[in-house]
Amino acid sequence: MYPEIDTPALVIDLDVVRANVSEMAKVASANGVRLRPHVKTHKMPELARMQLEAGASGITCAKLGEAEVMAQAGIDDILLAFPIWGRPKLRRLAALRERARVRVSLDSPEVAADLGRLGGPPVEVLVEVDTGQHRLGRPPGRPSADLVAEIAAIPGVEVVGLLTLAGHAYHSRTPAELAEAARREGEDLVETAEMCARDGISLREISVGSTPTARHVAGVAGVTEIRPGTYIFNDTAMMRLGVATEESTAARILTTVIGRPMPERVVCDAGTKCLTSDGYGTPGWIRAVGLPYLRMEFLNEEHGVAHLEPGHHAELPVGSRMGLIPSHACSVVNLFDIAYGVEDGEVITELSVAARGAVR
Amino acid sequence: MYPEIDTPALVIDLDVVRANVSEMAKVASANGVRLRPHVKTHKMPELARMQLEAGASGITCAKLGEAEVMAQAGIDDILLAFPIWGRPKLRRLAALRERARVRVSLDSPEVAADLGRLGGPPVEVLVEVDTGQHRLGRPPGRPSADLVAEIAAIPGVEVVGLLTLAGHAYHSRTPAELAEAARREGEDLVETAEMCARDGISLREISVGSTPTARHVAGVAGVTEIRPGTYIFNDTAMMRLGVATEESTAARILTTVIGRPMPERVVCDAGTKCLTSDGYGTPGWIRAVGLPYLRMEFLNEEHGVAHLEPGHHAELPVGSRMGLIPSHACSVVNLFDIAYGVEDGEVITELSVAARGAVR
Repeated sequence: MYPEIDTPALVIDLDVVRANVSEMAKVASANGVRLRPHVKTHKMPELARMQLEAGASGITCAKLGEAEVMAQAGIDDILLAFPIWGRPKLRRLAALRERARVRVSLDSPEVAADLGRLGGPPVEVLVEVDTGQHRLGRPPGRPSADLVAEIAAIPGVEVVGLLTLAGHAYHSRTPAELAEAARREGEDLVETAEMCARDGISLREISVGSTPTARHVAGVAGVTEIRPGTYIFNDTAMMRLGVATEESTAARILTTVIGRPMPERVVCDAGTKCLTSDGYGTPGWIRAVGLPYLRMEFLNEEHGVAHLEPGHHAELPVGSRMGLIPSHACSVVNLFDIAYGVEDGEVITELSVAARGAVR
Repeated sequence: MYPEIDTPALVIDLDVVRANVSEMAKVASANGVRLRPHVKTHKMPELARMQLEAGASGITCAKLGEAEVMAQAGIDDILLAFPIWGRPKLRRLAALRERARVRVSLDSPEVAADLGRLGGPPVEVLVEVDTGQHRLGRPPGRPSADLVAEIAAIPGVEVVGLLTLAGHAYHSRTPAELAEAARREGEDLVETAEMCARDGISLREISVGSTPTARHVAGVAGVTEIRPGTYIFNDTAMMRLGVATEESTAARILTTVIGRPMPERVVCDAGTKCLTSDGYGTPGWIRAVGLPYLRMEFLNEEHGVAHLEPGHHAELPVGSRMGLIPSHACSVVNLFDIAYGVEDGEVITELSVAARGAVR
């Protein structure tokens, strides 16, 4: 398996990536909504460009550092889905606005007032609504409509819409529950926007996040934009939610067996420094492709420890290679400086994870 | 709090680091054992040099990439506590041996045979023994003694000793349990070496790992080397095990409050991309210094969501800064390109995390 690459390594199947990118673009266009993929999953300008060429209207970034990398690569329509606070970041935001159309999300008058002092044309903001994630934002309806009114009165900012991320959806146990949670999320946002309209504030963007909800929420009347991220690579978390299959997962950690201390134990050279602890404790959180009789047991920083079922103890001697599907693609990509792009089982390119580590 | 630094950021208190480094050096010298700190915790040549100047006899690395960074910085005595496999790594190991004395740990004849073909003077190897970690290595006693005999017969390698990492100790619930587990670990290794001696193989190094066990295992007769890593920074995992206090933790994630959507909710700009998911689910896995009424609830990639006790809802408005003690210092350091070194509350230097991301 890819003898030209040393392990552990991040390997991306570009055929699967293209299929995933194309399929989500179709979901958006079939439903008449804009697609603004979150680039935190790949952190690679090349793949952001692929998404734009397939029909995305712009990109979403989590942090200014990511947005700067993407703008540097020529991408000129960016939603910063994170409240920007403090002089150093505001200076960077002002510079970013010279190169790209930038919108920012937030959930407080304090952050809006700070942004409002930036100068130049009013900063377009989306107000984050809490549809079940219990992170940023107030609940939908009156609490959020009041917040919108308060922020709309602040000079220097223009409230253009509402934004939310998957909330309840991530806890769904069945496809029907997921579909219902996603629809409710979209409807919550649309109803809040209607309340704002009755208050005299007209909002033109209803932006809803997440891969698991994208297919369902795109069809809710009034939703204007979807922001899935993980769909480009998928992972075992998406498989568990029923929105991906092994065939639609594009990211692998290529790893080598470096110890077989007991007949049933396989130790490989990929631990949390390649796979993170995200999802640990969930059965099947990491899957070895083509090895249904191998179960990952735990990870140390540099070791992955797996269990082989009886009858398979002679397999996977020291030096064998495995491809692991991570639990959370976004976090895993952030651990690597480069990824190997493959097609038809051949390494064809090295991709720079240019926005890796952009925490600020 | 450090207004000259933007957040989120990794901040290291160098006064605490010096105290931790000096104290562990004293533990080693008082017990007549060598100290070979694991540099995976800091990944910084400057701090490795500080450890050597304080009396460490060499360093431990997990991966070749870390060792290369350290050798490049002039460090010339390195234990690679990881089985090295495959042509690309063996070529790099040969080059590394030109610049530094290098020992390698392993647990299989296959890896030893590969190393044995390296050429040059025999490769000094330590055989890993499983004292409860259930990762690499066979159980102590006969299974490991037999493995040592098998490896000792392989040309091109010289078995110089046994190596283990904390096993049972990490699961200890009381200081007495921890001390007992650590002693048992040391004794298991020493008894295995005695068995090897009776088999005609004399071993000169008994090397035992981990910060929680270091103070206890250093006093076991026959142990020659301790390899703690985390002690230089400490973290909440070490606090829970009773081997660190808040005062002896040196690493902080400096973060800013970017949302206060509900009276009891504080959202900051440090999530798993700064803090990892290591330790999630353990109460108090992340602590905010000086804020006993704040409890971290969950992390998303870029958001930390915390709960404020009643009576404190007016505190921590948007823009406030907090210092967070991570659950696992080693993994957190790996997420940053630089750390800010502080003394007496002043930023005095930027430290390059030079061996960050060295997974190969």
